Amino acid sequence: MNLVLFRSDEERRTLLRDDRRFQHLVSVLRIVPGDRVAVGIVGGAVTSARVTTVEPERIVLDWDGDDSPAQPLLPLTVVVGHPRPIVLRRLVKDLATLGVSRILVFRGELSEKSYLESSIWSDGSLDEALLLGAEQAGTTVFPSVSRLWSLERAIAAVSGDSVVVFSPDGPARPRDVLAELRGSSEVAVVLGPERGFSEKEENLIARTRCTRVRMGERTIRTETACLLAVGAVATATGWW
Amino acid sequence: MNLVLFRSDEERRTLLRDDRRFQHLVSVLRIVPGDRVAVGIVGGAVTSARVTTVEPERIVLDWDGDDSPAQPLLPLTVVVGHPRPIVLRRLVKDLATLGVSRILVFRGELSEKSYLESSIWSDGSLDEALLLGAEQAGTTVFPSVSRLWSLERAIAAVSGDSVVVFSPDGPARPRDVLAELRGSSEVAVVLGPERGFSEKEENLIARTRCTRVRMGERTIRTETACLLAVGAVATATGWW
Repeated sequence: MNLVLFRSDEERRTLLRDDRRFQHLVSVLRIVPGDRVAVGIVGGAVTSARVTTVEPERIVLDWDGDDSPAQPLLPLTVVVGHPRPIVLRRLVKDLATLGVSRILVFRGELSEKSYLESSIWSDGSLDEALLLGAEQAGTTVFPSVSRLWSLERAIAAVSGDSVVVFSPDGPARPRDVLAELRGSSEVAVVLGPERGFSEKEENLIARTRCTRVRMGERTIRTETACLLAVGAVATATGWW
Repeated sequence: MNLVLFRSDEERRTLLRDDRRFQHLVSVLRIVPGDRVAVGIVGGAVTSARVTTVEPERIVLDWDGDDSPAQPLLPLTVVVGHPRPIVLRRLVKDLATLGVSRILVFRGELSEKSYLESSIWSDGSLDEALLLGAEQAGTTVFPSVSRLWSLERAIAAVSGDSVVVFSPDGPARPRDVLAELRGSSEVAVVLGPERGFSEKEENLIARTRCTRVRMGERTIRTETACLLAVGAVATATGWW
């Protein structure tokens, strides 16, 4: 946690013992009165607070720092076949840290049908993953996350973007293929679910104006592939 | 698991119920007699076997496929400050999947001293992580993993390589900076521990002939940074 992030409707001066942020400040960062910590409100500026009180039941923060703008999001959408829910939670956190703008999770024809009805879509765990990811990055803004019932709908949702499909049977040489993204304003990367794309989905991709690429010859996990795709695009475009 | 991997001294025709590979084949891949699965022996060829028997207590495999060579490792060493042991385990697995040659884990001056004496270095969990990573990649070869007591020793161990240090205060534009790696034969990437490099370590890096680079403006987790570093180098060199 590189920033203590508050929702806009939360009390922000006092953190109580049962709050995970209290636990982190005390157990990991071992703060003492007089320390300064980076703080922010979702969607707002990054600023800092002085720790005035550290007691067994509460921490008191005095928000007296200057504001600086939060790191903006990358103009990048990640379209990904629904992985196992526990994997999606971790992926959402990591993509929030990297700062993509949108995460579109689609039900692939070959993915497990039940995943889109997982409790992570309703129990707040994805919201928490987004907050944790933003806190790691030290920022106050994070991606939107949506579920879509087919690849077709996901592709339609990114129709204005430069679309890059990462798949094991794409052509090699990401360096050369991605070079054409230089100067792109909005990019979407598309990655299949663990079992890959169906023939119908492959046909849809073939009809879509997109760049296809693969990352090496190995079968890598969806979550690793997503992070590598973000890194590859952010590097190729010059956003990083 | 995209390949069932056996150690050279293991019985390889029969998998028993308490074996994780048995569990995976039955519960995840739901194999039935007559199915074919990719198999291999550590360090050997990739081949395939026919499943002849699936019983509650055992699976029998008939190794009758043709051999093909295992995916070679990338000529890449990852030098990383020791993260939390549970994180290291996952990182080792992912780096085995990506196929780096060596993982050198060093004790940073700012890292938690106890980590290098963690039980993961003696209880076989890193070996298992390597096997799992190779199985994910569908290959039989995986990195060596060593612990080193300082960054200095780690840097000495990669003295013949092109060294790239990834750090938050490196210059921007990984695309341009990494372009000079094109055609490199051996590369080492260096990443600090969570708390970064000490002043002494920074001085050591300054004296080392190396390229410095950062990946964006955000504070990302060590394990994410390592995967992105591998992707960035494999792309820039043209290995991918």
